[in-house]
Amino acid sequence: MKSIKGCPFGTHRVIEPKGTLPQAATKIDNTMEIYTNEMLIDVKTLNVDSASFTQIEESCHGNVECIKDTILKIVADRGKLQNPVTGSGGMLIGVIEEIGPDFPTDLKVGDKIATLVSLSLTPLRIDKILKVNVETDQVDIEGKAILFESGIYAKLPNDIPEKLALAVLDVAGAPAQTQKLVKPGMTVCIIGGGGKSGVLCAYEAMKAVGKDGKVIVVEYSPENAKRIEELKLAHHVIIADATKPVEVYQKVMEVTGGSYCDVVINNVNVPATEMSSILITKDEGTVYFFSMATSFTRAALGAEGVGKDVTMIIGNGYTKGHAEVALNILRESKEIRELFEKLYI
Amino acid sequence: MKSIKGCPFGTHRVIEPKGTLPQAATKIDNTMEIYTNEMLIDVKTLNVDSASFTQIEESCHGNVECIKDTILKIVADRGKLQNPVTGSGGMLIGVIEEIGPDFPTDLKVGDKIATLVSLSLTPLRIDKILKVNVETDQVDIEGKAILFESGIYAKLPNDIPEKLALAVLDVAGAPAQTQKLVKPGMTVCIIGGGGKSGVLCAYEAMKAVGKDGKVIVVEYSPENAKRIEELKLAHHVIIADATKPVEVYQKVMEVTGGSYCDVVINNVNVPATEMSSILITKDEGTVYFFSMATSFTRAALGAEGVGKDVTMIIGNGYTKGHAEVALNILRESKEIRELFEKLYI
Ligand SMILES: NC(=O)c1ccc[n+]([C@@H]2O[C@H](COP(=O)([O-])OP(=O)(O)OC[C@H]3O[C@@H](n4cnc5c(N)ncnc54)[C@H](OP(=O)(O)O)[C@@H]3O)[C@@H](O)[C@H]2O)c1
Ligand SMILES: NC(=O)c1ccc[n+]([C@@H]2O[C@H](COP(=O)([O-])OP(=O)(O)OC[C@H]3O[C@@H](n4cnc5c(N)ncnc54)[C@H](OP(=O)(O)O)[C@@H]3O)[C@@H](O)[C@H]2O)c1
Repeated sequence: MKSIKGCPFGTHRVIEPKGTLPQAATKIDNTMEIYTNEMLIDVKTLNVDSASFTQIEESCHGNVECIKDTILKIVADRGKLQNPVTGSGGMLIGVIEEIGPDFPTDLKVGDKIATLVSLSLTPLRIDKILKVNVETDQVDIEGKAILFESGIYAKLPNDIPEKLALAVLDVAGAPAQTQKLVKPGMTVCIIGGGGKSGVLCAYEAMKAVGKDGKVIVVEYSPENAKRIEELKLAHHVIIADATKPVEVYQKVMEVTGGSYCDVVINNVNVPATEMSSILITKDEGTVYFFSMATSFTRAALGAEGVGKDVTMIIGNGYTKGHAEVALNILRESKEIRELFEKLYI
Repeated sequence: MKSIKGCPFGTHRVIEPKGTLPQAATKIDNTMEIYTNEMLIDVKTLNVDSASFTQIEESCHGNVECIKDTILKIVADRGKLQNPVTGSGGMLIGVIEEIGPDFPTDLKVGDKIATLVSLSLTPLRIDKILKVNVETDQVDIEGKAILFESGIYAKLPNDIPEKLALAVLDVAGAPAQTQKLVKPGMTVCIIGGGGKSGVLCAYEAMKAVGKDGKVIVVEYSPENAKRIEELKLAHHVIIADATKPVEVYQKVMEVTGGSYCDVVINNVNVPATEMSSILITKDEGTVYFFSMATSFTRAALGAEGVGKDVTMIIGNGYTKGHAEVALNILRESKEIRELFEKLYI
C-alpha cells in the first residue's frame, strides 16, 4: 500500500487527459498498489453493460476468442473496461482483498461485493479470462480492481442468487427514490410499470400510499399489464402508449375521476414519453424520470409549453441505502422474486 | 366565438399528426374564432427565437424581403411560427382582443401582454409584416394569435421598457426557482453567474441566504466576474472553467473551507458542466440545472459514478409567479436595471 491518500473521486489515477474525472479519462493508472483511501478487489466476474457487450459481440461476429481479445485490449489500453464505442462499462463481482485505512466501510476482507459504480471509471487489471457467457453478458476472470473512496458497492447477500441480485442492483435507485417521494394518501402513476424497475417502483409505491392512496400503472404490452394485475401491484392498470400524451392523459383522468397525480415515475425504455408524464402530474407535483431515454430539453420546454408548475427530477442511479431497499423487495415479496427468477436467471 | 370548450392543451386545433400536442404538430388550425377557453390576441411584435431567426436570416443571405416571405410561408403552412429547421419559435407581444368565458385570467380586453409559451405551439395568423428588425430578431406585424387555457403570459408593466421586460421574461423561471429553493443560512453556488439568468439568480440567492448564508459565483470571463463583484451579488467570485470539474471543486472548497454547497444553480450556456455542479453539492443537497445544454444521462450517470446522493432538478421554464419575480428584480435593483439596459436595449 502507498502511504498517501488519493483524491476521493480517483483523479490521482487519471493519466490522460489531465483535469478530467476517471469516467471522462481515456487512460487511467491501473497499478494494483492501493492508496490509503482505496479498496482492492479480487475480481470474479465482470457483468458487461448490455450496450457495450452487444457492440463487442457484433464487431467479433460472435467469435469468443475475438471477444476475449477485444476486452483484454480495451483494459490494456485504458486501464478500465470502458468500451470506446459506447462509452459504457458495467459492474463487477469480487471479493475484498485489501481495505485502505482511509476507505470508509464496515465491510471486511473476504466479503463478497458487487460494485455499483460503472466499470467505465474503475481501475481494472485482467490476468486471465476464464469464460465468456454470451447469454448473460458476463465474463469470468482472474484479475483485480480498485474502488475509490467515493465508489459505491453492495455486499452480496447469502440468501439471493448472484445473478438475481445483480439484475435488481442494476436498477436499485428507482425503488429507493420511490420510497422517498411517495407519502400516504398520494395518487402515484408509474409509466412503464411492467418492466424491471417499474415492478420494483410499483411495489414500493403500493406500500407507501397506504389505504387512502392510489397507484396507477401505465403499460404498453397487455402481457406486462396482466403481470402487474396478477401481482396486485396497482389499483389501476392502464394499457396505453406513453409516446401518445393525449391518450395517456385521457385514460388516467378516467380512472382518477379527473384529478391529477402527486408523483409520476417514468421507467420506460423508449424516447418521447416526457409529455405523458408531465400532463398527468398536478401543479406542484413531482415527475421522477428514471428512464435514460429522457430528453432534458423536451422535458424543460414541454412543461413550460403547457404551463405546468411541476418539479422534474433527473433519476440519480444512487441514493443512500438503495441496494438494501431493492434486495429487500425480493425478500418481502415471494411473487416478485419468482417472477424475476423466471425472467433474469 | 364558438360555443364549445377546447382541450386545455390545444389538441382541438391539431390538424396533423392527430394525437400529438400543438408543439409536436406539423400543422395546427389558426382560424381566429376562439373556443370558450381561449384568448384572442391582437399581435404587435413577434420576438423570434434567436436560433430560428439566425437560420432564416442565413438562408436568406440577410435579404429582408426574403425573411418576410419565409416567415409568411411558415405561418401559412403550419398555422404557427415554428421554424421547421430549428423546431423553435419565440414569444409575442400584443393586446388582448377577446377573452373566452372559460379562460382563467384576471386581465381584461385592452391589456398589453407577452406570451410566455413558445410561438412553436401558438396559433398565429399574419395579415401583414410591417417591419423586420435584424438587430433584435423582432418582427412587427398586423395579425392575431390564440392562447390556450394552459398557455402562460405576463402583463407588460408600464414602468419597464418592453425590450427590457422581454429580455428578463425569457429567463424568468430561474430566479423564481432560486427563491423557492434557497433558505436562510445556506451555502449556494451559481455556476455561470455572470450571465443574464445568472445575475438574476445571484440576486435572489443573496436575498434568500440572509446574513448567515454564503453565495458563491463561478464565472468564466474576468469581465463577467468583475461585474458580479461590483454589483455585490456574491460573497465570493471564482474565475474558473465549469467544464473542468476538478478545478471548480478545488476552488470552491478553498472558499468554503472544505464544506459543500446546499444548492447549486447551473446557468451556463455550454455543454459538459454537469460534474462541476454535482461535485460541489453536499449529500442530500440540490442541483438545479437551468442550462439547456445539460445532458440527462451525463448528470444521472455522473452522480452515480461519484456516489453522490443529490437531487437533480430539470429547470422548468415556468413556475407560478415567475414573471413578477423577475420583473421585480429590475424594480428593486437600480444597478441590475442599469446593467441590463446597457446590455439588452
Ligand atoms: N437512472 C438510472 O440510474 C438508471 C439505471 C438503470 C436503468 N435505467 C433506465 O431505466 C429504464 C427502465 O429500465 P428497466 O430495466 O426497468 O427496463 P425494462 O424492464 O425494459 O422496462 C421498460 C418498460 O417500459 C415499457 N414500455 C416500453 N415502451 C412503452 C410505451 N411506449 N408505453 C408504455 N410503456 C412502454 C416496457 O413494456 P414492453 O416490455 O411491453 O415494451 C417495459 O415494461 C431504462 O431507460 C434504463 O436505461 C436508469
Ligand atoms: N430552462 C429554461 O426554461 C430556460 C429558459 C431560457 C434559457 N435557458 C438556458 O439558460 C442558460 C443561460 O441563459 P442566459 O440567457 O443566462 O445565458 P448567458 O447570459 O449567455 O449566460 C451564460 C453565462 O455562463 C458563462 N459561461 C460560459 N461558459 C462557461 C464556463 N465554461 N465556465 C463558467 N461559466 C461559463 C458565460 O460567461 P461568458 O460570457 O464569459 O462566456 C455567461 O456568463 C442557457 O443555456 C439557456 O438555454 C433555459
